[in-house]
Amino acid sequence: MNVVTTVDPRDGRRRETDLTETDDARVAAIAAQASGAAQWLSGLGRLGRAGLLDAIADALESRRTALVAAAESETGLSHPRLDQELTRAAVQFRMFADVLRDGDYVEAAIDHAADTPLGRGPDVRRMLVPLGPVAVFGASNFPFAFSVAGGDTAAALAAGCPVVVKAHPSHPLTSHASAAAIGAAIRGMSGPDGVIAAGYGEPAGRALVRHPAIRAAALTGSIGAARAIQAAIDERAEPIPLYAELSSVNPIVVRPGAAAARGDQIADGLFASFTGSGGQLCTKPGLAFIPADPGGDRLLEALRARVASAGGAVLLNERIRDAFVTRAAAFERAGARVSARPEVGPDPGFTVAPTLLEIGPAELTAELADECFGPLMVVVRYREDVELDAALATVPPSLTGSVHSGPEDDDAALRRLVDALAARSGRIVFDGYPTGVRVSWAQHHGGPWPSTNTVHTSVGATSIRRFLRPLAWQDAPEWVLPEELRDDFTAIARRVDGRLEPAQP
Amino acid sequence: MNVVTTVDPRDGRRRETDLTETDDARVAAIAAQASGAAQWLSGLGRLGRAGLLDAIADALESRRTALVAAAESETGLSHPRLDQELTRAAVQFRMFADVLRDGDYVEAAIDHAADTPLGRGPDVRRMLVPLGPVAVFGASNFPFAFSVAGGDTAAALAAGCPVVVKAHPSHPLTSHASAAAIGAAIRGMSGPDGVIAAGYGEPAGRALVRHPAIRAAALTGSIGAARAIQAAIDERAEPIPLYAELSSVNPIVVRPGAAAARGDQIADGLFASFTGSGGQLCTKPGLAFIPADPGGDRLLEALRARVASAGGAVLLNERIRDAFVTRAAAFERAGARVSARPEVGPDPGFTVAPTLLEIGPAELTAELADECFGPLMVVVRYREDVELDAALATVPPSLTGSVHSGPEDDDAALRRLVDALAARSGRIVFDGYPTGVRVSWAQHHGGPWPSTNTVHTSVGATSIRRFLRPLAWQDAPEWVLPEELRDDFTAIARRVDGRLEPAQP
Repeated sequence: MNVVTTVDPRDGRRRETDLTETDDARVAAIAAQASGAAQWLSGLGRLGRAGLLDAIADALESRRTALVAAAESETGLSHPRLDQELTRAAVQFRMFADVLRDGDYVEAAIDHAADTPLGRGPDVRRMLVPLGPVAVFGASNFPFAFSVAGGDTAAALAAGCPVVVKAHPSHPLTSHASAAAIGAAIRGMSGPDGVIAAGYGEPAGRALVRHPAIRAAALTGSIGAARAIQAAIDERAEPIPLYAELSSVNPIVVRPGAAAARGDQIADGLFASFTGSGGQLCTKPGLAFIPADPGGDRLLEALRARVASAGGAVLLNERIRDAFVTRAAAFERAGARVSARPEVGPDPGFTVAPTLLEIGPAELTAELADECFGPLMVVVRYREDVELDAALATVPPSLTGSVHSGPEDDDAALRRLVDALAARSGRIVFDGYPTGVRVSWAQHHGGPWPSTNTVHTSVGATSIRRFLRPLAWQDAPEWVLPEELRDDFTAIARRVDGRLEPAQP
Repeated sequence: MNVVTTVDPRDGRRRETDLTETDDARVAAIAAQASGAAQWLSGLGRLGRAGLLDAIADALESRRTALVAAAESETGLSHPRLDQELTRAAVQFRMFADVLRDGDYVEAAIDHAADTPLGRGPDVRRMLVPLGPVAVFGASNFPFAFSVAGGDTAAALAAGCPVVVKAHPSHPLTSHASAAAIGAAIRGMSGPDGVIAAGYGEPAGRALVRHPAIRAAALTGSIGAARAIQAAIDERAEPIPLYAELSSVNPIVVRPGAAAARGDQIADGLFASFTGSGGQLCTKPGLAFIPADPGGDRLLEALRARVASAGGAVLLNERIRDAFVTRAAAFERAGARVSARPEVGPDPGFTVAPTLLEIGPAELTAELADECFGPLMVVVRYREDVELDAALATVPPSLTGSVHSGPEDDDAALRRLVDALAARSGRIVFDGYPTGVRVSWAQHHGGPWPSTNTVHTSVGATSIRRFLRPLAWQDAPEWVLPEELRDDFTAIARRVDGRLEPAQP
């Protein structure tokens, strides 16, 4: 049994933990337990699961000090950032509790028997039901909000699906403590083992998605990781969906009017957005299009000054640090000029210097338009809209596209730009920054490949849809139906004979 | 250029058509046209597209005589069946016109800027937008309702996605005439070329899904066809979703009380359901569990009599006829006994004999629980519920599972049975037959693999979801937003700050 180790990125020290890698036999046992727990979780019903999610949020917050301390030593992220991230994790569970109480997410629909142009139609009733146990792959960069206690887990449990998380190797202790907190909430409701579990080690991840009991997988990670998991899924007799959030360069376009009107403020915003959390956010802006005019010059000057006086950023692990250094060097070899980069002294941990690079629009290649995970942003100076349009066409689709405009800017040009961004992103941000994803009902955190596999979100209320499947009942006796589909049930919105009927309070 | 041929399954005669197989250059031109047409279709808006869909329904019905005649000579299906199928195709377009006018399908949601536990949240607005051009693969068994003028086409056009259909080789002339009818409706609204197109030949299908302009594919066909299309998709730089409806054995369980109370009526229903349209329906019941008791004996006797006196069934093409004969022989070699099969004389066309086979529950193997496309049903005689449970566990997941029960039957046993069917199917039919899928809001035509890839439907109002992706706007100026997301728009239901607000008429 291989012992699981953990590394403090602030000093690079590796320690052994009490955890061991999860071998195939243990994966099989965990998956079987998850399968066995599905009926309890589904049987809780919407309101019972809402109570469970609230209890999980409470359990996480009651262990805040220990959880944040564990994450601090495993990720090098700052205490305030991790403290807020734990709050976000709790908020996510509570949001899904609201989603469950609202009940609209089941998409309940009733077509009573009726005469139709095709003859007598039977009574048909439809709603969404849980897909079954879900494998979640924890992300490196969010030890709470995209890991064991993250949004995928919250959405899957809300849907009624037990969850097995493959813990990210960068934070095994945080993962273990998170699973323990969630497990305590489940036991507090007399739930069985298997509603939540964590596994450790790459082989465990592959074994997990190959196991017949697992019905879907969710990943926030790299394209390479997604390919490896998909290859394991392809070994199954029955395919399962892989919901993947992968790579995103998140272009930001600054229009001349915006640069002229508030260049200094935008310089502040860009700096915070590309260096916050060490630039290790999937929504970090990796490309900023700044006009090559006096307003743009002043903006860039202000941005350079901020970068030049910044300190080093501790990255999450050695692999990410090495990849950052390699990618940044490759960008320079590919023609990007260093616009600003502070000196960062020798350091025992995984510290790197925030880096601002600069190119002209004709110099933007596919390589330079690729994501560099970490505190690096490439500035593209453009003169004409045609240069901007051509450069944007080189940028791969992203989770987000942002645009800053000012009162002097042309609305028709803005409309064209928005259409171009809409075709290549999942969220369009106006006069703001893509980082700091609001957790809410209308949020969409997805986008055309390679940012995700396009048609679903991994943040927000609608992310629950990933873990549900439709089921229809035809001419069913009333007592067989789920309560949401019985004639006299009015507590949730339903579509009855084609018309949307709001919930009756 | 290879000439496309067509065969009349009633006499096996092959004729040349005026059509040629679509080569790679033509596929590229069609895909580019589809891409170019996307903006017109999306720009029509919901109500404009609703008008287009109604016009398509009218155009199909105005060409009813010619379309049905073409399909009759290419499929061997009966005139009444094809006449009704054309009505169904028109109904599907009109249903999606209603879906568009209703507007709920866009899942519009607005979260106004607000203070949250995570700080100030920006204004975020979300709705579903078209995915882009879609490749549809026509099915053999529905020359209208699952082909060029079928539900996938209607759903994709409704979503705002241009459609390129790879015509099924069994009915090229029907496909061509259907595309012409739809094209006429589009031209009647001054639409461009490229909103609808048909391509011919297997290479065209593979080239189509490899083309970067195509953003999704929908298939009703075999697992083998799905694998070939997926392999072509896997050659792309960016993956696209393949929505596949594949193989389904559709078990029917007759409980002892039902057999005793209305065995004769059930025999009629089973006979019609497994032999109608030559048994070439994805919802054809391929397995019937009938109790081994006097009621079951009488039911089976009545069913045998109906089968024994039936005429031959003309199958759709030579390949399907050959596959049927081979599969039926394999079932007999695997131990299934012929329960009833009429003599069918020699025939120049693709005629086969309806076939009723019989086994005991312990004899049900994976091979015998596989789909045999055509007029064949395997009867499993069971004595005890434990036998039934064990046999059902051998049956692969299906589009449907049906149960007939009578007043004498035990409710607890029925509940267990329904739970077992729910885990392995997409629609549970009570005291009825799975064939004759109602086209309506609450319909679900999908199911766990291998019946489909589990999480979507290919029939009914919600099938539009397959061709949409979410898009969010953050802090957008009002004039940039789609009208459905502006504050004062109230014509559709929306979720505003977490609350569902019904449409204001």
